[in-house]
Amino acid sequence: MLTARNGNLCAVADTLHLSADPVDLTAALVDVPSVSGDEAELADLVERSLREQAPHLEVVRSGNSVLARTNLGRAERVVFAGHLDTVPINDNMPSRREGDVLHGCGTVDMKGGDAVMLHLAATLREPRHDLTFVFYDCEEIEASRNGLGRVERDLPEWLRGGLAIVCEPSDGVVEAGCQGTIRVEVRTTGRRAHTARGWMGENAVHAMGEVLRRLQAHETRVVEIDGCTYREGLQAVKITGGVAGNVVPDECVLTVNHRFAPDRSPAEAEAHLREVFAGFDLVVTDFAAGALPGLSAPVAKELVAATGGTPVGKLGWTDVARFAALGIPAVNFGPGDPTLAHTQQENVPVSQITGCVDVLRRFLA
Amino acid sequence: MLTARNGNLCAVADTLHLSADPVDLTAALVDVPSVSGDEAELADLVERSLREQAPHLEVVRSGNSVLARTNLGRAERVVFAGHLDTVPINDNMPSRREGDVLHGCGTVDMKGGDAVMLHLAATLREPRHDLTFVFYDCEEIEASRNGLGRVERDLPEWLRGGLAIVCEPSDGVVEAGCQGTIRVEVRTTGRRAHTARGWMGENAVHAMGEVLRRLQAHETRVVEIDGCTYREGLQAVKITGGVAGNVVPDECVLTVNHRFAPDRSPAEAEAHLREVFAGFDLVVTDFAAGALPGLSAPVAKELVAATGGTPVGKLGWTDVARFAALGIPAVNFGPGDPTLAHTQQENVPVSQITGCVDVLRRFLA
Repeated sequence: MLTARNGNLCAVADTLHLSADPVDLTAALVDVPSVSGDEAELADLVERSLREQAPHLEVVRSGNSVLARTNLGRAERVVFAGHLDTVPINDNMPSRREGDVLHGCGTVDMKGGDAVMLHLAATLREPRHDLTFVFYDCEEIEASRNGLGRVERDLPEWLRGGLAIVCEPSDGVVEAGCQGTIRVEVRTTGRRAHTARGWMGENAVHAMGEVLRRLQAHETRVVEIDGCTYREGLQAVKITGGVAGNVVPDECVLTVNHRFAPDRSPAEAEAHLREVFAGFDLVVTDFAAGALPGLSAPVAKELVAATGGTPVGKLGWTDVARFAALGIPAVNFGPGDPTLAHTQQENVPVSQITGCVDVLRRFLA
Repeated sequence: MLTARNGNLCAVADTLHLSADPVDLTAALVDVPSVSGDEAELADLVERSLREQAPHLEVVRSGNSVLARTNLGRAERVVFAGHLDTVPINDNMPSRREGDVLHGCGTVDMKGGDAVMLHLAATLREPRHDLTFVFYDCEEIEASRNGLGRVERDLPEWLRGGLAIVCEPSDGVVEAGCQGTIRVEVRTTGRRAHTARGWMGENAVHAMGEVLRRLQAHETRVVEIDGCTYREGLQAVKITGGVAGNVVPDECVLTVNHRFAPDRSPAEAEAHLREVFAGFDLVVTDFAAGALPGLSAPVAKELVAATGGTPVGKLGWTDVARFAALGIPAVNFGPGDPTLAHTQQENVPVSQITGCVDVLRRFLA
């Protein structure tokens, strides 16, 4: 099939070869652009391939999300989740293989993980637990459009299970739970005046000095839960103030992002910030709860055993928190270095893709 | 004459009545809009009125500046300077008289001063010193377009004299000299990182805390020169920093405006700032030298005596500094409260307009 894309004609596969090499499958997924909001073509391809090549699965479509599951009557069910969308392409398409490394937009975040899921969906015909696979849209943009949220509202039974595995990049190790995040604006106010008569005013930018001093003096917590270490963070991410080159500023706004370990709720995190910045005006602009690692669940222990390694705490926020909020233990487990996500030079060692397949096959076969 | 302006037809005087009431003359000047760059109509009117009503003056035109002078062979010459332009109109046109106060765009900055100059130009036929009057354009915008600068380049002999009086608003008292101004950018740098792994980065906004601390701790000088007090200032006027809501910022830029007494050169002011902000990256973005009060010149003493009051130091920067740079003692003396300049509620007590005329007539008759 030939389609016009960005003014060029390029070949797009009619189908994906789900049972063949998961590295080739990753490359094929990368080569179908799917920037958030524009996932229809890739969702069509995923749906068609699953219906054709995995007749043992029940497949449904919800918007640009594709859901598939076994119905084997097993005592336990494991839910896999992977988003189909990517951040905007940045001169890093199509995919390019150099030796043992695959380069391109989405190789890390997270078409490598999608390929692992699709390969297992097609090839694990008799898994020891029932399996659900959720390929969803719009993860990289505002939370209100997140496809997993839509599935949660419209098809809630599709998210139920004893363990959720979000195949976001985790360098091929189990990253358990996730930290919460809260952003606040700290505001100082003053009084405008001409700088030629500066003493008639009150400088709001100068007043912010004390807030920055407290930030620098702040000691972040390091928390251990279920053997996983969570290291909190408190960082100024933006500062603005100023009226004109000859005016004493009457307002300065500092945005602070606090990452907090999952033993604290967003309300507790806010209370902590109000303590740190006592005496200053503080407004919460957004937050997301963290997720406890949940590694005490037997099925989670089986997964950890299959990896043969030690789980670590997830520091970034991911959709595992949605599962945690539903009472489902959830971990991140996928190929790729998460620090390369959203960068132009995204790339994944192909051994991590096949390594993740091997671990999960060992866990589920 | 009727002209269309802002979609309305309004009456514009064919001429100005220079010898009549200087308060009415101020109102007439205010009612001809002359936002910087758009002074042609007002300059035409000033030129025509001077040619018709002050035949004792030599009049020349330079762009939208109008120059007039006596040539009486006096031993001393006094130069008056007033800009014709205003900041943008802000719902404060036409002029409006309420009791003893005249309201409107330019009443303070500085059509009141222009009216004083025009009235004296027309009525002082036998002044004790030769007089030069410079009505110029584009004072309120970038220095490169300043009409007084153009006159200095093209007609330098028109600025020569033993004293320059810039009729900028000074509340009707002699404001001598002016403070210098210098703006610098202080920059802190760091290293970007995801806030979920903040310790891998280095926060440039946090690093700015020390700069703000020094600003707050800084004690400004108060300097007395020729009996005038100059109070310096050091104020942050702008701060920016931040990449995204989840990224440790790698740069923060603080703009600082320093107003310095005229006993210091811009180079000395810069050296002082480099001392205050030692250890930080500092770039000078613009500066203007101050002007010493120059009140020891005999003709300046005559003016001060005519006012019957005590001169004060000018804290803001004005075009007196241009005359000072030419070696000509220069003062500000004009009607209106300078702190109302550039505000929507600009207004001048009419007694200050007539008071300035009286003082200058006493000085020059």
